[in-house]
This record gives sequence, structure tokens and C-alpha cells, in this order.
Amino acid sequence: MWCDLNIMIFNSKEIYLDNAAATKPSDGVIFEIQKTLSKSYANASSIHRMGFESSKIIKKARENIAQMLGCKESEIYFTSGGTEANNLAILGTAARFKSKRANKIITTEFEHHSVLFPCKKLESDGFEVVFLKPDENGDISSDEILNAIDERTILVSMMMVNNEIGSCLSLQNVKNMIVQKRSKAIFHVDAAQSFCKIPTKVSKLKCDLLTTTAHKVHGPQGIGALFCSEKIKISPINFGGKQQNSLRPGTECTALISGFSKAVEEACDFENSFEKVRKLYEECKNSLLKINGIKMNIASNSFPYILNLSIPGVKNEVLLNFLSSNNIFISSSSACAKGNRSHVLKSIGLSRDRIDSAVRVSFSKNNTSEEIKRFIDVLEKGVDAIKNKETNNAMNCLN
Amino acid sequence: MWCDLNIMIFNSKEIYLDNAAATKPSDGVIFEIQKTLSKSYANASSIHRMGFESSKIIKKARENIAQMLGCKESEIYFTSGGTEANNLAILGTAARFKSKRANKIITTEFEHHSVLFPCKKLESDGFEVVFLKPDENGDISSDEILNAIDERTILVSMMMVNNEIGSCLSLQNVKNMIVQKRSKAIFHVDAAQSFCKIPTKVSKLKCDLLTTTAHKVHGPQGIGALFCSEKIKISPINFGGKQQNSLRPGTECTALISGFSKAVEEACDFENSFEKVRKLYEECKNSLLKINGIKMNIASNSFPYILNLSIPGVKNEVLLNFLSSNNIFISSSSACAKGNRSHVLKSIGLSRDRIDSAVRVSFSKNNTSEEIKRFIDVLEKGVDAIKNKETNNAMNCLN
Repeated sequence: MWCDLNIMIFNSKEIYLDNAAATKPSDGVIFEIQKTLSKSYANASSIHRMGFESSKIIKKARENIAQMLGCKESEIYFTSGGTEANNLAILGTAARFKSKRANKIITTEFEHHSVLFPCKKLESDGFEVVFLKPDENGDISSDEILNAIDERTILVSMMMVNNEIGSCLSLQNVKNMIVQKRSKAIFHVDAAQSFCKIPTKVSKLKCDLLTTTAHKVHGPQGIGALFCSEKIKISPINFGGKQQNSLRPGTECTALISGFSKAVEEACDFENSFEKVRKLYEECKNSLLKINGIKMNIASNSFPYILNLSIPGVKNEVLLNFLSSNNIFISSSSACAKGNRSHVLKSIGLSRDRIDSAVRVSFSKNNTSEEIKRFIDVLEKGVDAIKNKETNNAMNCLN
Repeated sequence: MWCDLNIMIFNSKEIYLDNAAATKPSDGVIFEIQKTLSKSYANASSIHRMGFESSKIIKKARENIAQMLGCKESEIYFTSGGTEANNLAILGTAARFKSKRANKIITTEFEHHSVLFPCKKLESDGFEVVFLKPDENGDISSDEILNAIDERTILVSMMMVNNEIGSCLSLQNVKNMIVQKRSKAIFHVDAAQSFCKIPTKVSKLKCDLLTTTAHKVHGPQGIGALFCSEKIKISPINFGGKQQNSLRPGTECTALISGFSKAVEEACDFENSFEKVRKLYEECKNSLLKINGIKMNIASNSFPYILNLSIPGVKNEVLLNFLSSNNIFISSSSACAKGNRSHVLKSIGLSRDRIDSAVRVSFSKNNTSEEIKRFIDVLEKGVDAIKNKETNNAMNCLN
């Protein structure tokens, strides 16, 4: 039995199960970045051969990402990550269409903060923003979306997969609903979690804007891309040089872009990775369900890269700390929320106790069955230790 | 004599003299980035040991940059580069202070586009923007600044060193003038070109905001930092997670930040580099002055990292192309302007012919005297070839 919860059970290799927060860049990605930093450091806007070489790397990256999304190379705009891509999509649409007659935005209560907060900013600026409430499975009903859309709607912004509970939203009919309601609304999909993991063709999603990011798919942090359909026009939110059609000015970071490109290339067989991760997910879920008291915070239509569960009575921070001391890394909610109480779990109607004891286990193709076994083993011991300590504390208080 | 201007004179090593557009990352910087990508890939906001390790790297980087600027670590905000830092400074100040009574912004005609265009955007939104005209030496007169500032002024934004002609602006008294005019204006300095090359202490500049970027000082592209004094408050321009006090949300790119940090560390002896570059500059200038017809577009108080010259009658694009074919890389103006006619040279009153024949040679501590000699040699031959070709063309037209 453990009294000091920070005790090390095993002094063994790290088990990283926080892949929804950030993935390990692959060796190929790191090599590519290193090569670009060494050889292709010229500014991609410089009008000499070295500059052209940098711009060729960027063009190749656009082609790779466009191929994955089924769009044109010219529809890809690099940003500093998913947060900036979401901000550009939302604030850029609002700036473009701002008028008194048409200023309605539709999104959901459980979007990532980089969608929620730009929408809240616009609300404080006078836009009407509808935050649709997800059901207990983490989906948004088609009726609710249809009812919300009207002729004044300028933007519908919804995530493809929720980053905390892994629910896959039903987005197939959103564009049809927009058309049905005679709205000219732009349809934005935040695909930060799903890009390169499940099919993400813009023609199938019928979206006008789509957010991707590299560091969720074994690419580097600090780089993302926004798909912006050539059929629409949004306004820039930063102003400066002529890079990227002036929609996103600033010297392109050729090295990170080359790394992102490599990560996308390496994800071309994402179906195999998906199948591998699905097996790990099933194994993990089935083992967890045997642990007394564990509750799954999962949707019926779930994304196997993310598994959210609660262990009522065991505070997630204490458990995270215990696991971290034992070289196992999972999270409580979105990393961007820095440990604050999850708005996602609240939106699907979970109790405070269940939210405070919720943890997110997120997988990558690099995880193994052995890692899952060890994770379950240490988790069980941790839960016992925490519960025993709390019982002892409670008894000490009573004495 | 050359008729085909794309002929290769020497098939020799590349001579890179476009360091004001981007510098080559040092081996130490590349190693640091590679190490961080391999080992410290966890999201810096994750509340487990691996996350804390990433956040430690970021804290260390803030300390290094803060030391170079003479400010507190908590006053450093990472951005995706100089363009975003300038936008955050300008649009963030405007958003914070927007009111009908106080909405005047003062800047200069020859700022970088990432300052000019946010200011023009604000002008179109109803702000009053004064664009001060530089004198022929590329400085702004103190009287003009003083006359422009009034109680309604919310922001004065000026660059420390002009990125095309290398003139050093007299910024020492700007804050005093602001105080003298009983204005509460925020003083922003764009130090993108000068940071880590000349002393850039915020206490001496008495500025509230200061822009830096990594890729001008042998760091990677895609990362910059804004100094934002704790005495002031500006509004964010992107919205999302709680990173960086919510002033600049989004997952921090730990790898690029570690590379930026290393570049700043390596620049601690910038006085030595400055002295080396000053000698190269003098050597280059003196050799150029011997070439018939060359005119220097330089200020009296010049920054030796940048040398701007015109060769009237020789179109800069043709010369750049010739040099590029001979493995020598210089630029016509700012890379961000992508070869458009320079607004900087226009602002200091140069003629169209002189602007169209202007080139920028920009040095780094890694350049050598031998490189300068070869550059001069090839330049002379190129100028002769271009002039002869044009004479031949003109004669052909006459025949």
C-alpha cells in the first residue's frame, strides 16, 4: 500500500498517452526539419535561386496537404497552428461579412477554446452567436442545426471530432441545411484532431474552411494550415507582406512546413494506423471496464484515438500526478485549458464529481499493447492508493 | 563579354548576402531544435512531468531574451515571427484603447509592411494615422515627432533600424516627448533587424512594446517575441487557450522557441560580430564606390549589416538574376515585398530610376572578406554585361 503517492512503482520507460495534446514528431519529420534548416534557410519570398528553392518546399507541402484534403494547392494557407487557423476562419469570416443585417454565427458549446473564444469575442462585438448544446453522446442534433440556420447566418463552425471525448459529429448534412435555408453562410470545420487519422475530404464534408494542425499527427508544433475554398473570400486578421495572397502575411517557416509536409506524407496509410489504434482502444476500454467504479465518458460514435473516463472519488489531478511520477503521461482535459474544469464534459451533462475525476487517454500508432497493459496495472494501483489514502485521511479526521 | 546573362562565371560556393531577409541557423540552433523535437515534444500546457519539461525550456528561452532586452521574463510573449509581433503590438493597442476621443496613431512612411498595413487597416476603421516622412538620410526629425504627438495619441510605432537602407532612427527621446505632450501613448519599437546586433535595452529605449524575430539572428523562421511591458495592457488579437496569459493563445512551439533561445545565447558577444560586419561593410562600400556610376543609398548614421546601392541604368531584377546564376544572393528590397517597387526608397525621395536599380546587400558575421571580393568582382562583370547587352539591344533596334 502506498502512503506517499509520489512513490515510483516502476523506474521504466516513459509511456506517452497524451497524443491528443501533442504527438512525438517522427524521425522522418525531424530529419526533414533539420535538412531544411541547414540547406533551405533563405526567405521563401526572396527573388533569387535560394529563395525559389525555399518556396518550392512550401509548394510541395501545399500539394501534400491538398492531396490529403482533396482540394487545390492554392487553397492551403499555413498558420502558426490550429488556434490561429480557427481564429483566421472565424474572425476572418466575421470581418468579411460584418453588417447589421447578416451577423449570426452558429457553433457548439463544446468546441475547442480557439473556436469558442473568437466566437465569444464576436458576441461581445455585437454578433449574434448561437452555441448549440451537444447531446449526452457528444453529437449535435441535425434538427438543432437546421433550426438555428437562417438567412442572417454568416458562419457555421463545428469540430469534426471532439478533442476531449472523441465524439465524431454528424457534419455531412450541414452544408445542405445551409443551402436549404437559403443562407450564404460559410461552413468551417475544425479538423485539428481528425486530420490524417480519418478521411477528411473537403468535397465530402462540403465545407468552405477547414482547420488542420501538424503536432497532432507526428509533425512539429507551431505549424497548421487552413483550407480556404477558392469559392469564398475571407479577410486577413494580420496585415503585412504579400505572402500567401496577403491572407496570412509573414515569412513562412519553411522548416516547420517541410516537417508538416513529411508528417502528412507519412500518414498516407492512415487506415492502418486507425486499425492499430482501434485495437489498442478496445483493449484499453475493456480492461478499464473491469476496474471497479470506472465510468466511460464516451460517445456511441467514438473516435478511437481518444478515450475519456471518470473514476468518481479520485481527483484527476492527483491521479495524473501519480501516473506522471510513474512515467505514464495522460491528461485531464484539453492541454490548452491548463487543468481548468472541462467545459466539454459539462456540456454533455456530466456531474461535477464525474468531471473532476475525468481523465483523457489518447493514443498514437506508436503505442503498444504492452504499454496499455502497464498503464492499466499502474492505474489500478494508483486508484487503490489514492482511495486508501483518502480513507486514511478521513479516518484521521474522525479520530 | 556575356551575351547570355544567365551564364555561369564561376561554378563556386554560394555567397549568401541576403541576411536581412533571413540568416542561416547556426549549428547550435539546429542541434537544439532537433533535440527538443526528439525529447521535449509534450505540449507545454500539459500538467504532467513531460509537459513541465517543455514549459521549462520555454521559461529558459524567455529568460535569455529578457536578459538581452533588459526586461522581466514575464514580459516576453512568443509569436510566429516579427509580422505577428508587430500586428499584436499595433492592433492589440488599438483594440485596448479604441474610443472616439483617443484614436491617433503615429508611425513613419518607411516602416516594414507588417507595421504599415496594420496601421492602414486601422485608418480604414476610423483611426487617425500620421505617417511621418523620413528625411533623405532615413531618419525622422524630432520636431516632426513632437509636433505629431498630442493628448489623443494612443500609439507611436517606429522601427529601430530600417530594413532596406539600414538607417538607425533617433528613438531615444520619443518617450520623453510623449510625456512632455501629456499623452498616454504606448511606444512600440520594431527591432526586428537590430535585435541581437546592437544594444537593445528597453529601459534605454523607454519603450512599452518591442518586436523581435529569430530568423534575422541565426535562429529559425516562424518564431518571434513581443516585449510587452508589465506597466501596460494590450488586447489579444487571437483568442483561445490560456497560454501566455491569454495574450497570445495557441500551443507554444517548444522546438522553435528553444532554437530562438540558443540563437540569443550565441549572440551574447554581438559587439564582436558587429565589429566584424562593420569591417566587411566598409570593405564592400569602398570597393563599390570605385565602380563607375554606383550610388550609395545610405544614411549618415548607418547600420553596417545593410548596404543599399543603386546602379542607374541596370535594372535590379536583371542584376539579381545574374548574381543568382553565379551563386551570389542579394535582394532588391524587403523579401516580404516580393520584388515590388520599394516604398522605403520612395519615402527618402529617390528617383524611379534609382529605385528600380537599387539592390540590398546584407551581411552576417559568417561572411568573409573573400566573399566580398568575389561579390564585387562578379558584380562588376555583371554590370558590364548588362550594360553591353542593353547597348547591343538598343543598336539592334536602331538598325
